[in-house]
Amino acid sequence: MRGIVLVLILVVSPLQADEPAIRKLLEAQVADWNRGDIAAFMKSYDNSPETTFVGERVLKGYSSVLARYKHQYPDRGAMGQLRFTELEVRMLSTEHGVVTGRFSLTRIHEAGGPAAGVFSLVLRHTNTGWKIIHDHTSRE
Amino acid sequence: MRGIVLVLILVVSPLQADEPAIRKLLEAQVADWNRGDIAAFMKSYDNSPETTFVGERVLKGYSSVLARYKHQYPDRGAMGQLRFTELEVRMLSTEHGVVTGRFSLTRIHEAGGPAAGVFSLVLRHTNTGWKIIHDHTSRE
Repeated sequence: MRGIVLVLILVVSPLQADEPAIRKLLEAQVADWNRGDIAAFMKSYDNSPETTFVGERVLKGYSSVLARYKHQYPDRGAMGQLRFTELEVRMLSTEHGVVTGRFSLTRIHEAGGPAAGVFSLVLRHTNTGWKIIHDHTSRE
Repeated sequence: MRGIVLVLILVVSPLQADEPAIRKLLEAQVADWNRGDIAAFMKSYDNSPETTFVGERVLKGYSSVLARYKHQYPDRGAMGQLRFTELEVRMLSTEHGVVTGRFSLTRIHEAGGPAAGVFSLVLRHTNTGWKIIHDHTSRE
């Protein structure tokens, strides 16, 4: 008796495949932050003079964004414990996506106290994977 | 004597052509606002359930964004006089662009007083022109 071979091909569109990769990047960022490793955390940003961080004002360039993080979070106490919630990923194309979410920082009073707010990220798929090219973070 | 005909072809890439269109859209938005015309102002947003406004929290859907504007700015006094400065346009592709800038609202004390801050917009080129698909606006 001949067996019947059923071949099932699952087609995953590039857009469907990219959302988990982006979520993984953000999970890694949180883990890096909570280990006190800003250098690893910053690897999620595109190392480009075009990379932009909008906080109280508009900062342009990877090195400016890195300098801001180092200045604002000089030690593990200041970094506190980071958490992202309500993450939503919207793919614009196979190359770009937008993420919105909330962040909260659990931190003792002496280190600045707790902080929370919302963020919008624009990500680009580069030849080293998904990278944040634009970050707008605002506090409550 | 034969004349020499010099043909000069100016090549304008689609990306170069799109930045002025985006700036024009934002200028029109400011003019609409300052005329007290929220309906016209809102035409710059993509009329889609995916359109997102991030203020103190994340609002999703064109109708939610419109309702927020109507609620927060019920009359011309509350709307004040809007101004955009420090506009920077970054084209991501022929289809998407990111704009950063500062806004300021000149407004009498009784109507809420002056307000200012920064914003990030993501725009998409639709078949009815450039439209805002994501707006993150934060106050100083």
